[in-house]
Amino acid sequence: MKADGINRIIAIYHLKADSRHIDAKARDICYEQTVEIPEELTCDDWIKDNIVGRIENIRDLGEDIYEVHISYSTEITGFTLPGLLNVVYGNISLKKGIVLWRLYLPEDFTSRFTGPAFGIEGVRELLQVYHRSLLAAPLKPIGTNNAKLGDLCYELACGGIDIVKDDHGLCDQSFSPFRERVLRCLEAVNQAYRETGRRTLYFPCVTGDFESMEDRILWAKDQGVGGILISPMITGIDYLRFLASGIKINLPIMAHPSLMGAFFSDIFHGISHQVLLGTFMRLAGADMVIYPNFCGRFPFRQEVCLAINNALKEPFYYIKSSLPVPAGGISLENIPFLKNLFGNDVIFLVGSSLFSRSIDMRDNARYFLSLVEHE
Amino acid sequence: MKADGINRIIAIYHLKADSRHIDAKARDICYEQTVEIPEELTCDDWIKDNIVGRIENIRDLGEDIYEVHISYSTEITGFTLPGLLNVVYGNISLKKGIVLWRLYLPEDFTSRFTGPAFGIEGVRELLQVYHRSLLAAPLKPIGTNNAKLGDLCYELACGGIDIVKDDHGLCDQSFSPFRERVLRCLEAVNQAYRETGRRTLYFPCVTGDFESMEDRILWAKDQGVGGILISPMITGIDYLRFLASGIKINLPIMAHPSLMGAFFSDIFHGISHQVLLGTFMRLAGADMVIYPNFCGRFPFRQEVCLAINNALKEPFYYIKSSLPVPAGGISLENIPFLKNLFGNDVIFLVGSSLFSRSIDMRDNARYFLSLVEHE
Repeated sequence: MKADGINRIIAIYHLKADSRHIDAKARDICYEQTVEIPEELTCDDWIKDNIVGRIENIRDLGEDIYEVHISYSTEITGFTLPGLLNVVYGNISLKKGIVLWRLYLPEDFTSRFTGPAFGIEGVRELLQVYHRSLLAAPLKPIGTNNAKLGDLCYELACGGIDIVKDDHGLCDQSFSPFRERVLRCLEAVNQAYRETGRRTLYFPCVTGDFESMEDRILWAKDQGVGGILISPMITGIDYLRFLASGIKINLPIMAHPSLMGAFFSDIFHGISHQVLLGTFMRLAGADMVIYPNFCGRFPFRQEVCLAINNALKEPFYYIKSSLPVPAGGISLENIPFLKNLFGNDVIFLVGSSLFSRSIDMRDNARYFLSLVEHE
Repeated sequence: MKADGINRIIAIYHLKADSRHIDAKARDICYEQTVEIPEELTCDDWIKDNIVGRIENIRDLGEDIYEVHISYSTEITGFTLPGLLNVVYGNISLKKGIVLWRLYLPEDFTSRFTGPAFGIEGVRELLQVYHRSLLAAPLKPIGTNNAKLGDLCYELACGGIDIVKDDHGLCDQSFSPFRERVLRCLEAVNQAYRETGRRTLYFPCVTGDFESMEDRILWAKDQGVGGILISPMITGIDYLRFLASGIKINLPIMAHPSLMGAFFSDIFHGISHQVLLGTFMRLAGADMVIYPNFCGRFPFRQEVCLAINNALKEPFYYIKSSLPVPAGGISLENIPFLKNLFGNDVIFLVGSSLFSRSIDMRDNARYFLSLVEHE
């Protein structure tokens, strides 16, 4: 995602088009995403040279698929994330046969962003866990009262789960009021800490109506939560960036992919997993990024998961790496295999497989931990 | 979108599945979108009865397509728009063969929303135009300096355009600083008003980084802008609702579909145009909703455009109707036909066809106006 030696944004698209139309389709993107008027109406030479996107390369991938590199001036984004989203995929989202496949950002642009405040090393320091994969478990199902969620949180913490997070559908419902839930779960992780000497971080879900979010997050921070869970496609991706870059919050942030799947398509439409869950989430400052893993209940392929992992960890100037959080129906049996595949810098988020192992959640959590502790 | 006689949210999905799997696929949605654990792990009867979604109807549409009606408790949304988005399409966006096709909201839920602050009648009152379709034109191309954009705005206003809006890629770039642009364009519409006695509303584009948006909007309001343009899929849909429902802003809001196209797919994936551009934009409070019209440069079909129009105007409790804003390469020649098709309560947003008619923009605007004035 670094764009070395060039001071422009490089967007790599995969286009579906036949050879007679590929040049026109690529040029159309250059105009649609910038001046939004046809080439023949773009009369100003300065605008043609400085504003309109530039085709840098077109490569035939076979079967009417082309890889097209288009570069954009950083200036037209206003050096903001909303501007970037708009320029690289805004209007062409409404057309067909176009996937934003990769994104390379020059240092000039990236330097306006802080990225993850904690990153992999920062999260490990908070947990004091350096030499193994990390474990997360959800508080669920929705509808469970806060007393029971608190008990569940306590058992998971005693069993050695590093991060206990709210289910992403939990917010501030009558059956589970936000503040009461946070207090119960903090009591649970603190009690477990006193008993085990091991720190579990509790992450409440803070996705909610715009007016309430900041107060709720600051209140939760004051109570001592270990981090927060948010769904950036629902709140707006730039709201994640706002939270991650602000000194007021200063908590690790776990991003949830709710609603993001709309961007992933099999028919050359949308944004690739590696760009949306990788580049954008990391640039916006997610310390941890949940995605549905392969061999779970979602249709994500192994190569896609590896590409997301790579985008979250590859060199990106001074921007810290984010922790991939494979989830979505991971079976405990697959943990040893996945640990080898992804390496240690990963958080395994396991729900159903953990819950269904036995009714003793503490023992289930211990077993989960044993899977990443033993080499 | 009214859900008469039932106090639950009804989401109608179109599913691609064969007859052997349709029941399981429908049940899977009921669990995935609520408790997020498999049916066999959902042990609590209260949760099964009150939290898990309910299949209300399954209808075979032929060719392995099924229409499935699933109802959800309003309570699990926390009565918020982010909660609604999450419940009706959050996690299943990450699965395949599922389109959110229609959405019916009970009064109990809808009553928490204000909807458009102005609506069709309110916008007409501001413009004092009651008996014809409305006209909008964009300030473009990006890269043009503010002096020239101001001149263009003046000519368009003198020619009788009702709403002159920034191109949605304009924000606060060095070649077109936001505050200078707003002042130039307001000077232009005010000067035109003094000369013609006709009011043109200028809408600056306010999409930008989260920290700047509210200040920028309030400043623009103080200067006297006629409304604002925003891209809700980029800022977060709930940010639109926040703006529309707040007494501080109190300006008509035009929503732009940038990035939304990712949700529209040909392979039974995503959210239908009528729900995303219709139901959600109206519930969130957009007074005007831009969408790419058929017979333009985007692949939207006529029936889709009519469905969007319908969703913006059909009865929806006390929620005001929004103005559809067909755009995206509409040719002036098509205006008479489109006026008959859509009725008067529509804003035609024309760019390229208006700009390419002649170099006399005032005359071009007058011609545009003549197309909707004469019966």
